[in-house]
Amino acid sequence: MADDGIWNVYLAGEIHSDWRRRIADGVSEAGLPVRLLAPVTDHGASDDVGVEILGLEQEGFWKDHKGAGVNALRTQTMLRRADVVVVRFGEEYRQWNAAFDAGFAAALGKPIVTLHDSGLTHALKEVDRAAMATAQAPEQVVEILRYATVKE
Amino acid sequence: MADDGIWNVYLAGEIHSDWRRRIADGVSEAGLPVRLLAPVTDHGASDDVGVEILGLEQEGFWKDHKGAGVNALRTQTMLRRADVVVVRFGEEYRQWNAAFDAGFAAALGKPIVTLHDSGLTHALKEVDRAAMATAQAPEQVVEILRYATVKE
Amino acid sequence: MADDGIWNVYLAGEIHSDWRRRIADGVSEAGLPVRLLAPVTDHGASDDVGVEILGLEQEGFWKDHKGAGVNALRTQTMLRRADVVVVRFGEEYRQWNAAFDAGFAAALGKPIVTLHDSGLTHALKEVDRAAMATAQAPEQVVEILRYATVKE
Amino acid sequence: MADDGIWNVYLAGEIHSDWRRRIADGVSEAGLPVRLLAPVTDHGASDDVGVEILGLEQEGFWKDHKGAGVNALRTQTMLRRADVVVVRFGEEYRQWNAAFDAGFAAALGKPIVTLHDSGLTHALKEVDRAAMATAQAPEQVVEILRYATVKE
Amino acid sequence: MADDGIWNVYLAGEIHSDWRRRIADGVSEAGLPVRLLAPVTDHGASDDVGVEILGLEQEGFWKDHKGAGVNALRTQTMLRRADVVVVRFGEEYRQWNAAFDAGFAAALGKPIVTLHDSGLTHALKEVDRAAMATAQAPEQVVEILRYATVKE
Amino acid sequence: MADDGIWNVYLAGEIHSDWRRRIADGVSEAGLPVRLLAPVTDHGASDDVGVEILGLEQEGFWKDHKGAGVNALRTQTMLRRADVVVVRFGEEYRQWNAAFDAGFAAALGKPIVTLHDSGLTHALKEVDRAAMATAQAPEQVVEILRYATVKE
Amino acid sequence: MADDGIWNVYLAGEIHSDWRRRIADGVSEAGLPVRLLAPVTDHGASDDVGVEILGLEQEGFWKDHKGAGVNALRTQTMLRRADVVVVRFGEEYRQWNAAFDAGFAAALGKPIVTLHDSGLTHALKEVDRAAMATAQAPEQVVEILRYATVKE
Amino acid sequence: MADDGIWNVYLAGEIHSDWRRRIADGVSEAGLPVRLLAPVTDHGASDDVGVEILGLEQEGFWKDHKGAGVNALRTQTMLRRADVVVVRFGEEYRQWNAAFDAGFAAALGKPIVTLHDSGLTHALKEVDRAAMATAQAPEQVVEILRYATVKE
Repeated sequence: MADDGIWNVYLAGEIHSDWRRRIADGVSEAGLPVRLLAPVTDHGASDDVGVEILGLEQEGFWKDHKGAGVNALRTQTMLRRADVVVVRFGEEYRQWNAAFDAGFAAALGKPIVTLHDSGLTHALKEVDRAAMATAQAPEQVVEILRYATVKE
Repeated sequence: MADDGIWNVYLAGEIHSDWRRRIADGVSEAGLPVRLLAPVTDHGASDDVGVEILGLEQEGFWKDHKGAGVNALRTQTMLRRADVVVVRFGEEYRQWNAAFDAGFAAALGKPIVTLHDSGLTHALKEVDRAAMATAQAPEQVVEILRYATVKE
Repeated sequence: MADDGIWNVYLAGEIHSDWRRRIADGVSEAGLPVRLLAPVTDHGASDDVGVEILGLEQEGFWKDHKGAGVNALRTQTMLRRADVVVVRFGEEYRQWNAAFDAGFAAALGKPIVTLHDSGLTHALKEVDRAAMATAQAPEQVVEILRYATVKE
Repeated sequence: MADDGIWNVYLAGEIHSDWRRRIADGVSEAGLPVRLLAPVTDHGASDDVGVEILGLEQEGFWKDHKGAGVNALRTQTMLRRADVVVVRFGEEYRQWNAAFDAGFAAALGKPIVTLHDSGLTHALKEVDRAAMATAQAPEQVVEILRYATVKE
Repeated sequence: MADDGIWNVYLAGEIHSDWRRRIADGVSEAGLPVRLLAPVTDHGASDDVGVEILGLEQEGFWKDHKGAGVNALRTQTMLRRADVVVVRFGEEYRQWNAAFDAGFAAALGKPIVTLHDSGLTHALKEVDRAAMATAQAPEQVVEILRYATVKE
Repeated sequence: MADDGIWNVYLAGEIHSDWRRRIADGVSEAGLPVRLLAPVTDHGASDDVGVEILGLEQEGFWKDHKGAGVNALRTQTMLRRADVVVVRFGEEYRQWNAAFDAGFAAALGKPIVTLHDSGLTHALKEVDRAAMATAQAPEQVVEILRYATVKE
Repeated sequence: MADDGIWNVYLAGEIHSDWRRRIADGVSEAGLPVRLLAPVTDHGASDDVGVEILGLEQEGFWKDHKGAGVNALRTQTMLRRADVVVVRFGEEYRQWNAAFDAGFAAALGKPIVTLHDSGLTHALKEVDRAAMATAQAPEQVVEILRYATVKE
Repeated sequence: MADDGIWNVYLAGEIHSDWRRRIADGVSEAGLPVRLLAPVTDHGASDDVGVEILGLEQEGFWKDHKGAGVNALRTQTMLRRADVVVVRFGEEYRQWNAAFDAGFAAALGKPIVTLHDSGLTHALKEVDRAAMATAQAPEQVVEILRYATVKE
């Protein structure tokens, strides 16, 4: 909860479905005192940001390294400022960065909400164990935020 | 003391008497720069929130577990943001969550005020020892907040 | 895990049953690399230590306050050094100090194991939620320690 | 570096190849002042530990939850004690717990070494960015440990 | 520096001379972005606050204890929020609380400015050593604040 | 990111070129939610501030010591408040204070951006390794800030 | 409590009476697992250590500054390692360093025992409030340490 | 001071003169309870360690980056474990890593001793200000360590 009474909620993980928009819509409709934070969700821009700004690389490893640095500057700042961290896992990709963000948040003592289908339950058991809640739909996350921020 | 000069005061513990309202009234009448924070005080809603939002459970243990997670997401965020933590113990129930909140606040270095009748003194000696003040009436808490925030 | 490879395990809570001895026996029989720490479990000595060492008090509140200070000097040092905190709740007394210790440990990021009968489940839901495991028998705690310290 | 001059090195991640043994052999042959720590690597035991010790569950989610709690009690203690955290990613499974451990270590300021084949480079870019070194073979990790601990 | 760009400056120590007013006047005249914080400077009110609010005590020790608790609730909150801590030592009284506040601030990593006559130099050498500056007049403190907050 | 959604960016290092102005211009033109912080960049004023405010010194060492204290009061406060720390190294002077600021920021877990010509790469390898990005032109820093703060 | 089961107890404050020896004798006679730490108690050596090792100074302020730096290197290291901090106040001198050490220890969350005659009670109320116990004789401190370290 | 009563002293900075050996000889001759820690002082090995262990790089920047990572794994672990950090600046090279280490140590609250000729005083004023002592000869550092560790 920020000093203005608004909660900073960081939405980590999957960038290929509309879950962030659905949470944003729910928060907006409910008029919750919540500020949503997120990584850059334009996949191409995120992959290329390092070489775009700082110069080309020949090796893929270093191209990725540069890009990951610029993204981490953003995401770690947001993670440190967040009151709640929501981490979404989808079916595609390995999404190790989502799990990394969850571990980072856990070590900082941030409350975590995981969001994923039940088919991923066993694979995500360590991450879910570190969470205060595990949801399957974005609307459930909105309900949790409503309960946390304005329920009396 | 938040950056806007307002103190965040978290009111932990008993939810079955009017002590929070009496403190709120006192703070309001005195015009103190205090933002009161609290857990959800609707007992039924608090007990059921886990299964309400995240789906039914057959086992009471897991129903409680789910609900406690959603409540902890709220209370731990508020505890971490609080400048002062007031912890109220009543005659009913075992109120282990109130003592838990007090221990949590103590380890974070937050100043604690305990609020309870003198009949509970011996049972609460460890918690009272960790507090900066032990009050018996909500109005005393208001006076402490007045002294802390606006007395010159 | 201390630098000598030994785990410091603090046994908080109830002092009127033999649960600490049963854990100590189990740890000893299994030859686990575990150093058990505990508060003073002699109830009378614990209650009187303040006035015994530092002088009599007329008011019960201050007698308790003195005693709680000396006990806290011991218990908070042990809590800070512990790798794992086991918290036992029994049927007798309100045991607010046990819940306080659990909250203190939780805020420090220490893994907690709670130990209590199933009849206390609802009352302890917030404390159990903060724990890595909830056991009903001391022998289960020994098994957890065996798994944590020597299982390959 | 522990007080006895020995470095605690936690080996996180994949449990289905012989990478831990190869590091252990290398450390042993070189006589390095290194104490290797690891999660339980018996997959079945790790999956079942929760219900084995604490009682059966009907729901897979809660069975996993119980097991993950007992495992986390071990792994988070070791992570907090570690001087260096090596995180291995293999081809099989999603290994979100490995990425979670890496994020946890990063937030604690622990130096990380990642270990994986070059084919995983792009998928692991965020984790590799948080690491001090990225190796492809266990023997390279041994060389890093040799350099860190005994090279003059 | 608070999020609104204003610096919180805590003025600890002596309450029997006009040094706080002189700093306040200087800050005001210079229009500095500084919020001045202070303990209660009404000596009688400060001494009596414990028993005034929480009930009379027979023993002077416990009267002082109660009062010191309420004052600490205020001062430690302000110390934790302060960007800069100014500590004033005068000729009268032993002022152990001023030195205590300085030690508290030092351990939190807060920059300290000490303010005292040159006659106290040897007695205050440990406190001065922990300070970023040692001034003899309040106007010097104002100049330091001007330099820190608005000088380009 | 401050509670008002604005990022505090501290610009450490070289004070003899126009790099800070170029970043300020870029931030301003792009309308970024960024608050730029900086040490005093008037070299003479910075060198003399100690003796100017606190009295003359005969020894150069103590003149420097006094001045460095007043400057550190400003810079360490800003470093602690910063979300991002940009550190500029130029060709002139040894600039040990810039590297000191970088180390200070690194230990606090702040994301760092280094800014220097490629000729300094080898000499700055340890500082660059601790940075999330290494830029050669102020305009690249502006692009990084744009990406971090407003890119969607 | 150190990893070898021994408690580090730092004895701060007065260096002109035999209180440290009396505690040392008591600890030794009782065979307590306690390692006693202390500042240099040779007053002359302590005052002169800065100029003795690092070269003469003309100004008393800087002579003191140098000496206080070397002493702080010792005392702050010991304070950070201490499990318990005993702070002794005597009748002579202003002893601001003792109160500074107490404040430093308090902010670090170290349990404090104060030791002084009852005549100093009012002047030391803030320091005593931060302590877990206030003793008047060294033998009482030994009893507290016995209770904390070996009582069952 | 480690749990075995030995102080960990990290010797940062210049690797081209015999200052570390002179401190080691002094410590050894005096029989001080001090464990000396250091970066790898073989310049070539230090520069090449990254590519030696982890594979060649075409770009100098990335060769340096790899090497600096492996070195940082060692030095940051030692810095975190150190009780005292000695930082040596010589005439050659820019030694930004030495100043970086000093800033890193300062932010962690480690006592620092700087060691350099008087000709570097003005350039090092910020670093010296953060130090508890500034020496010109290694033998002075030995005397400081003797005073800190064994003087009574």
